[in-house]
Amino acid sequence: MAAPSEEEGAVGRRCHQRSAAMLDVPFLPFCAFLGTLGLLCVAMVGSWCQHWRGGFSLDGSSRTFNWHPVLMVTGLVVLYGTAALVYRIPYTWSGPKLPWKVLHGSLALGAFILTVLGLSAVFCFHNSQGTPNMYSLHSWMGLGTVLLFSCQWVAGFGAFLLPWAPTWLRALYKPIHVFFGSTILLLSVASCVSGINEKLFFSLKNGTMQYKLLPAEAVFANTLGLLILIFGVLVVAALARPSWKRPDSDSPDSRQPLLSAER
Amino acid sequence: MAAPSEEEGAVGRRCHQRSAAMLDVPFLPFCAFLGTLGLLCVAMVGSWCQHWRGGFSLDGSSRTFNWHPVLMVTGLVVLYGTAALVYRIPYTWSGPKLPWKVLHGSLALGAFILTVLGLSAVFCFHNSQGTPNMYSLHSWMGLGTVLLFSCQWVAGFGAFLLPWAPTWLRALYKPIHVFFGSTILLLSVASCVSGINEKLFFSLKNGTMQYKLLPAEAVFANTLGLLILIFGVLVVAALARPSWKRPDSDSPDSRQPLLSAER
Repeated sequence: MAAPSEEEGAVGRRCHQRSAAMLDVPFLPFCAFLGTLGLLCVAMVGSWCQHWRGGFSLDGSSRTFNWHPVLMVTGLVVLYGTAALVYRIPYTWSGPKLPWKVLHGSLALGAFILTVLGLSAVFCFHNSQGTPNMYSLHSWMGLGTVLLFSCQWVAGFGAFLLPWAPTWLRALYKPIHVFFGSTILLLSVASCVSGINEKLFFSLKNGTMQYKLLPAEAVFANTLGLLILIFGVLVVAALARPSWKRPDSDSPDSRQPLLSAER
Repeated sequence: MAAPSEEEGAVGRRCHQRSAAMLDVPFLPFCAFLGTLGLLCVAMVGSWCQHWRGGFSLDGSSRTFNWHPVLMVTGLVVLYGTAALVYRIPYTWSGPKLPWKVLHGSLALGAFILTVLGLSAVFCFHNSQGTPNMYSLHSWMGLGTVLLFSCQWVAGFGAFLLPWAPTWLRALYKPIHVFFGSTILLLSVASCVSGINEKLFFSLKNGTMQYKLLPAEAVFANTLGLLILIFGVLVVAALARPSWKRPDSDSPDSRQPLLSAER
């Protein structure tokens, strides 16, 4: 096989550029689609718990448990995904980065608070029923994800918003923060999917309502699981897309801390 | 807040480069670690089924089912991950790409064959027990993943190994192939984890062997689930790492088909 000539090389490069342009989806319509999908996931998990699982309460019954899936999907998937995408919005690219850093950190903090409330709901339910905590693979993976998320938030706040981290440490930590940002979202999605699967096996086991007979609730919750998967994959794809990254992401401004005036 | 001066900008860039160099893990030791982790996953899923679940057979009993987790973890996670990493091995970067394309496609085909055998095992078990197929979220997600994988293999073979796809189509399809390569692996991992969780709820429900009492089998299989998760995340991280990508990945040679002599 002969090596390609220079002319063939130039044709190849032009062809590659033209093909890349054909794949260039605009960010904002994609984001609107993602937002709709995220809201649909929240609405569906709420409807599932309200319509089929008896609604919500704080009395330690299975209606207390119902807060768990709603808060985890809302906090650890949808709000977390929103926080992760802040720097991809093109009009955040001009002007100072600090307000967007604060928004990113605040949305992530909101996601973390919902997540902790979601964990409290399941611990409260288990304790009031005398069921042990933390035995299933779902719970190991879920708690591992939340612990990673808490480390991520604290380290991100310390490195990028407080003024004490030296520049070399911020530059070293940034790609790690970005990597774990996507990883935690994917672990959250995997945790949610295994949790929905587990809950359906627990709940649908009698008469015509057995999971294996695929009643309406099973179709609804399986569909919810697939939509959560699609949401997670699309957010991670948006984060990874080079043309949607903030162009100056390596500039010193990107490492400007919240309290830099104190330095 | 004042904008950074030019000198500060230069210091920031130097600092960023130095920090990036500090994070520069060599590929081959990382790959050896990944290989060990993958083999450990295969050994653990085999040991789980052999030691706690009664071993293997082809008689339609639960011992036929046991082929399902072993073949899915071996094919759809470990061998698939190996196929995905072929182009990251530095000594594949010099010389013609074609042998590596053939190796990549062959390993992926091997992974696909193991996957289809793994699916056959669970369908055979369900059919012989009179259990419906394809009702759980695990099965929906798993079959969706395998369908995506089959499309990925056929499209990859058609676009990159057969001579008929035009250059613009190959250039258009390549980033899609790369994106779905990582996505399918993550979906496989999520499917495996939800499947292990489900199997443990099915199998561990009597006396002192209840899942919630966390017997040795549960600890072993939960650990296996976490190791599969870590393997998947590390393979996707390796695929995404810019410095480990084949430098000429946009060159026309990268789109050279198997039968180009016929053109």
